[in-house]
Amino acid sequence: MPDILPRFMGVAALLAGPLVATATLVPGSQHGPYARVFYARNLPSPAAQVGFPHAWTHAYGNARHDSAYPVGSSAPTWLKSGVTWRYAEARAWPLSRHKPFGAKVYGDRLALATMTQFYGNALGVSAADGIIYAESDDEFAYALNARTGRLIWRTSPVGNTLMGDPLVFGHVVYLTAGNVGFNFSNVQRYSQKTAARGAGVSYNGVYALDRTTGKLLWHFGTMGATMPTPAIADNRLFIDTGSGDIYAINAQTGHQIWVKRAGGIANMSDPAIYHGHVYVALSVVPYLYCLSAENGHIVWKASIRRATKTGLGDVSPAVAHGVAVMDAVAVVPSHGGRTTMTTIVRAYNAEDGRVLWTHTMGLGPKPPAFKGGVPMIHGNAVYVGTPVDNIYQAYDLHSGKVLWTWHIPKAGAAGAGRGPATYSHGKLFISTGPRLFVLNAHTGRLIGQKYLGGRFGIVNPVIVGGTIYLDNSWDWIMAVPVSTVVAHKPTHRQLSP
Amino acid sequence: MPDILPRFMGVAALLAGPLVATATLVPGSQHGPYARVFYARNLPSPAAQVGFPHAWTHAYGNARHDSAYPVGSSAPTWLKSGVTWRYAEARAWPLSRHKPFGAKVYGDRLALATMTQFYGNALGVSAADGIIYAESDDEFAYALNARTGRLIWRTSPVGNTLMGDPLVFGHVVYLTAGNVGFNFSNVQRYSQKTAARGAGVSYNGVYALDRTTGKLLWHFGTMGATMPTPAIADNRLFIDTGSGDIYAINAQTGHQIWVKRAGGIANMSDPAIYHGHVYVALSVVPYLYCLSAENGHIVWKASIRRATKTGLGDVSPAVAHGVAVMDAVAVVPSHGGRTTMTTIVRAYNAEDGRVLWTHTMGLGPKPPAFKGGVPMIHGNAVYVGTPVDNIYQAYDLHSGKVLWTWHIPKAGAAGAGRGPATYSHGKLFISTGPRLFVLNAHTGRLIGQKYLGGRFGIVNPVIVGGTIYLDNSWDWIMAVPVSTVVAHKPTHRQLSP
Repeated sequence: MPDILPRFMGVAALLAGPLVATATLVPGSQHGPYARVFYARNLPSPAAQVGFPHAWTHAYGNARHDSAYPVGSSAPTWLKSGVTWRYAEARAWPLSRHKPFGAKVYGDRLALATMTQFYGNALGVSAADGIIYAESDDEFAYALNARTGRLIWRTSPVGNTLMGDPLVFGHVVYLTAGNVGFNFSNVQRYSQKTAARGAGVSYNGVYALDRTTGKLLWHFGTMGATMPTPAIADNRLFIDTGSGDIYAINAQTGHQIWVKRAGGIANMSDPAIYHGHVYVALSVVPYLYCLSAENGHIVWKASIRRATKTGLGDVSPAVAHGVAVMDAVAVVPSHGGRTTMTTIVRAYNAEDGRVLWTHTMGLGPKPPAFKGGVPMIHGNAVYVGTPVDNIYQAYDLHSGKVLWTWHIPKAGAAGAGRGPATYSHGKLFISTGPRLFVLNAHTGRLIGQKYLGGRFGIVNPVIVGGTIYLDNSWDWIMAVPVSTVVAHKPTHRQLSP
Repeated sequence: MPDILPRFMGVAALLAGPLVATATLVPGSQHGPYARVFYARNLPSPAAQVGFPHAWTHAYGNARHDSAYPVGSSAPTWLKSGVTWRYAEARAWPLSRHKPFGAKVYGDRLALATMTQFYGNALGVSAADGIIYAESDDEFAYALNARTGRLIWRTSPVGNTLMGDPLVFGHVVYLTAGNVGFNFSNVQRYSQKTAARGAGVSYNGVYALDRTTGKLLWHFGTMGATMPTPAIADNRLFIDTGSGDIYAINAQTGHQIWVKRAGGIANMSDPAIYHGHVYVALSVVPYLYCLSAENGHIVWKASIRRATKTGLGDVSPAVAHGVAVMDAVAVVPSHGGRTTMTTIVRAYNAEDGRVLWTHTMGLGPKPPAFKGGVPMIHGNAVYVGTPVDNIYQAYDLHSGKVLWTWHIPKAGAAGAGRGPATYSHGKLFISTGPRLFVLNAHTGRLIGQKYLGGRFGIVNPVIVGGTIYLDNSWDWIMAVPVSTVVAHKPTHRQLSP
């Protein structure tokens, strides 16, 4: 049984700082299904925290989107050799089901997107101090013991999808609430480019929880949907929303510091912070912005011509070594009357926005829902996938020279290649479709893969020591030993489940 | 503790008819928060079922929308004298809170609509055989013991808002899933009038449960949102959806019988069945339809000029004594530049659609969200409310003569008067804002009222014997003795909480 929680009527949340005692922060009956449950006995021991990052300040762990954390010799054996577990979240669909729920009515393409956006996990997990955090479109957030996969806490502070990657900073975990819906009045405003996605569609905003117990500390409500994952630096949290506003709020108190009315609509572009600047892209009024983290002023902005309406706002820019890399699915004019797309990858000088290089990937049909692949920078290379022609490519970060191309096998009805890869020990780990693939990072050659079932959305493999942590659209969280993916050569039979 | 439920992996649902044994019908982990809980001990005794209707085949109980069920002398004493209880549903907001959750960010008007559409109960409860059923936008359905208010079962078979009024027919309870959202691709289709509200916005359709245990029997998935409540007659269930399709399905098996591609979008118009015809209204392609229940052919259709885009599709027609009554919030041209509205009430010959009479209610501002008042027919009168100028009016059903007008006190930021009234023993019971009002049904004079807290959406008071059953936007279900509302004279002080 979970530890007893304070009655919702008298939940006194008297904490340091401006958080005054508040009777009830958010709706929800105390013994009801959305109430927080907390199992203190499943917290990791201090020893089991060794080797893990202490914080998680960006979607995919950092501005490079590269989530591999090698561990030293003092790390526990289990972490070095790797553990295996699977946790069924609230709307879990059996991993034995190859088809998404609802495929008969919606067809595979739309059902895959619907399952990711409303039942499963759109982005990957976060890992900090021996705990794996996940937020799901099943409206719950979860903290699991990284070793055992046992539930530490589960909570649903808001009745909306949680599409991001939980941030962890100080004693707080941050969730963002928002879904893809527009209500009727905003459908009508769309033609005047004044629509706010999410306005009047349940409740949106940032929800801050105690990282150990999951208790709600405060929430920062926003008019527009906050589907993206924020980013944190210097005790400031930055987030873009469906009403085209980009906010900076105090990461401890939740008070607003500044807001930038950029216009357009935020989709899934997660901000990246680099050298005092915030990089994020919005769509409909399609720009990649570089803002001052101090005051929100626009340092530079750039667009990608022919990007589809949501193309630019879907992708999260990766920034490192003075270079910001972005991509956008774009329309290819007049191609036999059939809507044909490509993916334009572009690198900018992070300081002044000068274009360093542009690369156009292959042609393909319009992918449903999320359009684009989240770039990942490691060393002097950047790796980008795309669901247009289902490939990953590696480029030299500074020149844009194509290093290699890998074609994703069995990409599936909705296309594959949306999540960022993860670099570890000369290998590239990629989670897409129902599989985890391992490539030689230098040649792009497939050197291992493992069928895990379900489907990975815009998910990256998070590697801590010898374990890979993931979550998926079938609403499962899982741990997989690195050794079980890399050990054996891929055989053709291996590609089938 | 609830009775243990079969593991979701091996939920064998072997039932009569074409329902084959299916491993898992819908996503959801067995011990998770969405799993069904069932407390057999809270089922009503046979004696406690006396006096209740056995079935609930329409939104608001019947095609007249008049939900009063007088009980005979053999009914149990408690039912005659009335009981009091309150049940906090999953996203309950304290009734002591006068403001909706989120008012600071969204303002009262939008926050009231958001709370009704995403956290609370949009429509009223159903009552059958000693059980009160409610479906909520908190994504759960509930069965409570009508006497004690104790939970019999609670379940969330689908991750979407449940905006209707659960139907009860045979051994089955029917829920409909769907929310107000349009996804991005349908926002773009709106200008070509081909948008489907709800397509790709979680899962939509009809979900059939065992009325005693809440176990899911089958579900009929639809592309468009099924926000309305269906209607059942001759073992056929009729429902209109956000893609402009009107379906007839077999009420036992869930198999489709016919579908009528009416076009436009269904909002909240619940079908009414009368003499082998189905009456329902859709918006964007704005018509009130009379269809053959046999084959879906259009018998007649009629529009209301100047009805706002969703005006026609919000209201559920009431049909009785050969008359179909409909109303729609309509735009009043050129009124000092400010958007001003009125409400047009119109009666049609149910057989051939001839207009019998039209009445235009007073002017007022554009109400947020649900536009219109659900008409209720009792005897030779029809009663209609409206949130435009916050009144109820009574008309002679056949001539349209205005019998009386009642001005709703303290209507609130989003306007009042959306739910149908209920006629009982010469009195009219109306739930609107945080109060329950009682009028003399013949004169319209206020003769009683009771402050209950929260806010009533498009809710009608359901009266069985001496008890009034309701649910509200603060996500509570409640029972109130008739005697406590009618007993005392309304004093001015009474109007304040």
